[in-house]
Amino acid sequence: MTIIEKLSALRALMKERNIEAYFIPTSDFHETEYVGEHFKARAYMSGFTGSQGVLAICQDCAALWTDGRYFIQAENQLEGSTIDLMKQGEEGVPTVEEYLYDHMSENAILGFDGRVMNTTLVEKIASKLNEKNITFACHEDLVGMIWNDRPELPNKPGFFLEEKYSGKSTKDKMADIRKEMQKHGAQYHIITALDDIAWIMNMRGWDISHYPVMLSYLVIGMDSATIYIDEAKLTDELRKNFADNQVEVHAYDAIYEEVKAIRGVVLLDKNIVNYAIIENLDKEIQIVNCPNPSQLMKSMKNPVEQENNRIVHIKDAVAMCKFMYWLKTNVGKEKITEISASDYLEQLRKDQGCFDLSFDTISAYKEHAAMMHYHAEEDTDVELQPEGMLLVDSGGQYLEGTTDITRTFVLGPISDEIRFHFTTALRSNIALSKAHFLYGCRGLNLDILARGPLWDLDLDYKCGTGHGVGHVLNVHEGPNGFRWRIVPERNDSCVLEEGMTQSNEPGVYIEGSHGIRHENEMVVRKGNKNEYGQFMHFETITFVPFDLDGVDASLLTSYEKAWLNDYHAQVYEKVSPFLTEDEREWLKTATRSI
Amino acid sequence: MTIIEKLSALRALMKERNIEAYFIPTSDFHETEYVGEHFKARAYMSGFTGSQGVLAICQDCAALWTDGRYFIQAENQLEGSTIDLMKQGEEGVPTVEEYLYDHMSENAILGFDGRVMNTTLVEKIASKLNEKNITFACHEDLVGMIWNDRPELPNKPGFFLEEKYSGKSTKDKMADIRKEMQKHGAQYHIITALDDIAWIMNMRGWDISHYPVMLSYLVIGMDSATIYIDEAKLTDELRKNFADNQVEVHAYDAIYEEVKAIRGVVLLDKNIVNYAIIENLDKEIQIVNCPNPSQLMKSMKNPVEQENNRIVHIKDAVAMCKFMYWLKTNVGKEKITEISASDYLEQLRKDQGCFDLSFDTISAYKEHAAMMHYHAEEDTDVELQPEGMLLVDSGGQYLEGTTDITRTFVLGPISDEIRFHFTTALRSNIALSKAHFLYGCRGLNLDILARGPLWDLDLDYKCGTGHGVGHVLNVHEGPNGFRWRIVPERNDSCVLEEGMTQSNEPGVYIEGSHGIRHENEMVVRKGNKNEYGQFMHFETITFVPFDLDGVDASLLTSYEKAWLNDYHAQVYEKVSPFLTEDEREWLKTATRSI
Repeated sequence: MTIIEKLSALRALMKERNIEAYFIPTSDFHETEYVGEHFKARAYMSGFTGSQGVLAICQDCAALWTDGRYFIQAENQLEGSTIDLMKQGEEGVPTVEEYLYDHMSENAILGFDGRVMNTTLVEKIASKLNEKNITFACHEDLVGMIWNDRPELPNKPGFFLEEKYSGKSTKDKMADIRKEMQKHGAQYHIITALDDIAWIMNMRGWDISHYPVMLSYLVIGMDSATIYIDEAKLTDELRKNFADNQVEVHAYDAIYEEVKAIRGVVLLDKNIVNYAIIENLDKEIQIVNCPNPSQLMKSMKNPVEQENNRIVHIKDAVAMCKFMYWLKTNVGKEKITEISASDYLEQLRKDQGCFDLSFDTISAYKEHAAMMHYHAEEDTDVELQPEGMLLVDSGGQYLEGTTDITRTFVLGPISDEIRFHFTTALRSNIALSKAHFLYGCRGLNLDILARGPLWDLDLDYKCGTGHGVGHVLNVHEGPNGFRWRIVPERNDSCVLEEGMTQSNEPGVYIEGSHGIRHENEMVVRKGNKNEYGQFMHFETITFVPFDLDGVDASLLTSYEKAWLNDYHAQVYEKVSPFLTEDEREWLKTATRSI
Repeated sequence: MTIIEKLSALRALMKERNIEAYFIPTSDFHETEYVGEHFKARAYMSGFTGSQGVLAICQDCAALWTDGRYFIQAENQLEGSTIDLMKQGEEGVPTVEEYLYDHMSENAILGFDGRVMNTTLVEKIASKLNEKNITFACHEDLVGMIWNDRPELPNKPGFFLEEKYSGKSTKDKMADIRKEMQKHGAQYHIITALDDIAWIMNMRGWDISHYPVMLSYLVIGMDSATIYIDEAKLTDELRKNFADNQVEVHAYDAIYEEVKAIRGVVLLDKNIVNYAIIENLDKEIQIVNCPNPSQLMKSMKNPVEQENNRIVHIKDAVAMCKFMYWLKTNVGKEKITEISASDYLEQLRKDQGCFDLSFDTISAYKEHAAMMHYHAEEDTDVELQPEGMLLVDSGGQYLEGTTDITRTFVLGPISDEIRFHFTTALRSNIALSKAHFLYGCRGLNLDILARGPLWDLDLDYKCGTGHGVGHVLNVHEGPNGFRWRIVPERNDSCVLEEGMTQSNEPGVYIEGSHGIRHENEMVVRKGNKNEYGQFMHFETITFVPFDLDGVDASLLTSYEKAWLNDYHAQVYEKVSPFLTEDEREWLKTATRSI
């Protein structure tokens, strides 16, 4: 079917049901950052394949909202579809709520699949449309009715993450969560965030590319619990862990019926729990709306997770160092493109035990790197030359942890301006790496350390300086991170607690010219405690050389040089034992003192 | 009368009125930071003379709360008074509310003078005592009834601050305030903050030492206004300015009766407006409780104020440089003490046109400087020797502006540790001075620039890094400042706006050994605006050498050295024309490039 045919089929279904407008977000039932193939309804209906966007369809018009990263792509993909592009955040562009308000009649019905809409979003739309007394039809998935070749829900069995990797039993995690429930006076806790459930149950799986989670819901009572999941995907170990912890297994979609029976006080996070679940709760129930307690617990990596994470970062560094050696030795001698380079790196990671990438690799040459979310496709792929720079942002999923690293490689001659930017962004990374601060600080207190050297040049990067990283889980996780302003929906401005792991990735992006990013992962550690309070600092756990070919040493302070030389000495010490003779010799030079 | 006699006289008055407990804070009718002699009721009743503290008196017990700065002083001054010392913030010490709750009966009466209690404080006490159904008697000043030799309210005439100093007419200021009242839907605005009234009315006076304000209240309606002030203190110019702006003059204490007639919506700040005024308002009135709009307006210095401020800071720098020359040349040769040094400096300031100090000078030698609020008295005064350091924190009130500066002078040999601390605190000051940031930043985003170098040594200073400074007004003013955590009652964490003027004063305080503080004033300025936003930076307006005898140049980065050398070159250029030949020669060396 063409997009126009799909729209017309959907409109017919809408008409039959007296639905005036239909709303299609980009989400699964769990508000996951990236969704599996089964859930790409917005892409199916619009043809626009970007990772972010919402679609609204009326009888005689339709519009798609997406953000600045995707304006060009969306314009191309929407051509001929009759769907209007709404450039989110641009002046004069209405919000979805405003658009629906303008195009809908009094007392009309807005349709959507309540399972793919988080409750906060629905409440936001409702607060605008209430003025016209518009009601919701949220129990039918109209896209599902016309999508004949829809990919099935995934069915590959997951696996139990042994305690030598997870460091904490489900029993202990559930006990901690029940303590938090008690503090809130809650008898029940509904959890639909896949990473929280995976963490609590020490369970991992293959349901979403790069995110090793399993589609499921979890309801925890004070002395009972139920997980809603496709039984076919369970292994004996997973089954045993559930049984050992008195967790009953019910069918994945049974939750919608069963939550109707819940009585008492329920703790849940409306920013995540979908509207269909909330709709089915008894109206007398009292909801305590707050972040899942597991979110903060999960972010504070335990000693076993930290130790595994240190180990896996060496494995990942071995892959990265071999890649760097190969790239810098062979560029200009054999044909290497953005895509072939990232494929080569992927293989090196797999050799180290990586079972999946932690996100789609960004391999961006020269001006491509100025696009922060560039992803090389066949039609954009270019051959690397012995000049300019290649930015590679990549990471892997291993049983011992999740990695995320960016290096910008100098392939040959670069301009003075590029060297200046390269060195300044490195000074930014070093300043945040060296941060030493009192307990109580948040990312917003520290962000200027990284941004400062670039702000000094009237430059900035239009994103946070760093994000929390999961453990054998999502490469982006809350509630920690670095950002100078609080952005509530980003949920990354908490007080930095020991064990939290986050990226440090300042960069310079000059449109049409070049992009630079230097990214390490760092763990929050306690230092001395004295009359002033508890001092904290970061332990950097990524060990790959920053390309000294891009560095103007005269711009570095003695403090920065000392940090860099010490860091590079550690890189050599930790990584060299796993390299070939040639690689080792090269690494010696790449990590030389400057 | 002895304290015991005073307490017994007060208790007799309480008994007659059936008042079970009486509460005496440290405040005037305007919640001013420092109060005039007439208002020192807590000191009169307790014998404790510190600048902060509250006193609660029951029939058979009495207690005084004060903070860590004053524990030793209070212990000494309360000896034999029968008043218990409550060390605020120490573990196990009850708050005043808890104390009153424990010592008072159900349905009893708590007495206080409603004019010296801000409304937020009364509401806080009420929320605790309501549980016991305790009511308030707030219309009588019992201390006033027994205080026979109470100092009169001040009666020296104030003066009109000409527009060449203020830069903005009362007319324009009132128009701006009325616009803000309109935004809040308010017909009336009650202002009791003396600095706000002084700013709006371009009026200054002598009612509080170091704070050039006049005791008054102001009620602004949409097309009328009334100032409540002692008419005897008005000059013709002040009278004319009131008349030109349709501001009626009523007796100082007439406000309490007249506010009863106000109807409509009233904008006021409960953190400042006293409880007696609120009590007298019609109960049907709607209060919009928010900061006085004049507070933010006042903090953003206008171009004329900024220009005057630049001029006065050169005058102040001339006094400071002459002082520094004299001190460093004569120490060990003639007898100089902490007090005689500060007297000498005061005279130098007066020679420059200073009409009052902006606060009591801190002149603290060696270990005295480790006490951040040390004030030399006859019994603590010491003679300066040609060794160690003298910390001098001082400032002046001039018609052109208000100054606040700290320098730490090296008088002779110092230890390596002191030199290290001196240099590190200077690096802290420089880092904040050089800050270059995007519009939207608050003090909490920038604070780590100053604190970072000290945090790196596991050191900290237990105060903000800087405070807003008034213009021919309070040396401490909100809502701007530098602090890494938001402390609501400090009111110094706003977004930094162009023209805001604040101190930059990191320090090191090692008990029993030494204290170092380097303080400059800086004005927020706009820089370039580009695709990333509006860049901002600081213009330093204090021009006095940092004592290079304390600096270990090897610890400074090239960036820091460049800043310092450039700063010192400016000091020489701006100040040397006003010095004698000898002083000029000395300044040349004191500002040499390192």
